[in-house]
Amino acid sequence: MAPNEQLTFYTAEYSPFAQRVHIALEDVHAKYTIHQFEQRGGKPEWYIEVNPFRKIPALTFGGPAVPADQPSSESVKLIESAAILEFLADVFPEANLLPANPILRAKARIFAEFYRNYVHDEFKDAFFLANPIEGIVAALEKLQRLLPPSGFAVGEWSIADIMVAPFLTRMSLFLRVGLGAYTKENWARLVEILGSDKFSRLRRYISDIHERPSFKRTWISDERQIELWKEHPGLRRKANE
Amino acid sequence: MAPNEQLTFYTAEYSPFAQRVHIALEDVHAKYTIHQFEQRGGKPEWYIEVNPFRKIPALTFGGPAVPADQPSSESVKLIESAAILEFLADVFPEANLLPANPILRAKARIFAEFYRNYVHDEFKDAFFLANPIEGIVAALEKLQRLLPPSGFAVGEWSIADIMVAPFLTRMSLFLRVGLGAYTKENWARLVEILGSDKFSRLRRYISDIHERPSFKRTWISDERQIELWKEHPGLRRKANE
Repeated sequence: MAPNEQLTFYTAEYSPFAQRVHIALEDVHAKYTIHQFEQRGGKPEWYIEVNPFRKIPALTFGGPAVPADQPSSESVKLIESAAILEFLADVFPEANLLPANPILRAKARIFAEFYRNYVHDEFKDAFFLANPIEGIVAALEKLQRLLPPSGFAVGEWSIADIMVAPFLTRMSLFLRVGLGAYTKENWARLVEILGSDKFSRLRRYISDIHERPSFKRTWISDERQIELWKEHPGLRRKANE
Repeated sequence: MAPNEQLTFYTAEYSPFAQRVHIALEDVHAKYTIHQFEQRGGKPEWYIEVNPFRKIPALTFGGPAVPADQPSSESVKLIESAAILEFLADVFPEANLLPANPILRAKARIFAEFYRNYVHDEFKDAFFLANPIEGIVAALEKLQRLLPPSGFAVGEWSIADIMVAPFLTRMSLFLRVGLGAYTKENWARLVEILGSDKFSRLRRYISDIHERPSFKRTWISDERQIELWKEHPGLRRKANE
């Protein structure tokens, strides 16, 4: 497997799922072309060749060098951010996106699974649907328990951190500026709880993520992030209105 | 990593998530002890040592041989079925739970991700909440498109198949006997649609899963399966009442 094969990355500025792949591409020092879609939703007809389900992110791997909007039938089409991260870890082993030790690899995957299965929907439901905040508080507390005393999820930066980074950072930014469907009261309580000593380890983790070069290079400005998410169709109301 | 380390598998009879791990343990020909919890919900206090979140499945790996209900602090505790499957694939490479080729590995993971992200909740919502059946029909059609003309998700049996097997087989059994929250009309339509020519490839795939020895050895009888799921607290009503 030649890691210098053609790589084209299909993305959209707002997408945390796409940012996962973007971070990993930076971490492995891949040479890649970016094709950025300007809006949510509808994708052009040619994109079916890349992803029949028309979602981003996607990656084409190998085949001839072609313009991103004329994908070759000879490239391999990769979809689903979690699968793409594992693929990049496989193809660029020297980047250590996963530790070599199988127990640490398992711990990295357990951390990511835990986020996906217990934290992600709790935040979504609080953010978009104004669900009671107890769910997200309890879930974040459990996630925090999985973190070692310092460093990233399994010590060194890995897929585990890439899986959660785009979400925890957005959560933290949106809470800071009051973006979300929360009632004013729930918003204030959540800001207070997550700002308390109880969550200092999680806050440190999120600030370590912000310092990671691959994260910095793939994070659009706070202002732009807010601008893009304010318009999210799932947001029933904006806080502070 | 010595694959002849101590392994204890914590499970419950009804659980499709636990069956994933059980199938993989059979596929890798591991020597393991089973500890089966008799009911859903509440777990004994000692189980916190294995999984602080008290969920099954879990696996302890290494450490001294101890009774399952006296877990050693020296064993590694593994939780989250998807992470455990990757762990077993890592520790027992000769079992080929994942292909060696990174592109095929990616395709296996894409198939599993696709099931998790687009099919799983559609079935759950139709089964437990009597959602309209269009969602699950469309999702299964897409999943079917990812299957090759014959064989398993990436040709040979892999993690991809283990991830979906406990769910597709239960879905198929429960539909056959009319178990689920569907209205009578939706149930009949779903049975008809999934029985039509359009879904012959998916039906073949499900029947191939049933023939797999590791699946057979870990599938409780249809009668027992139905008995256990009839009592599921999430089932608002039973069809055919």
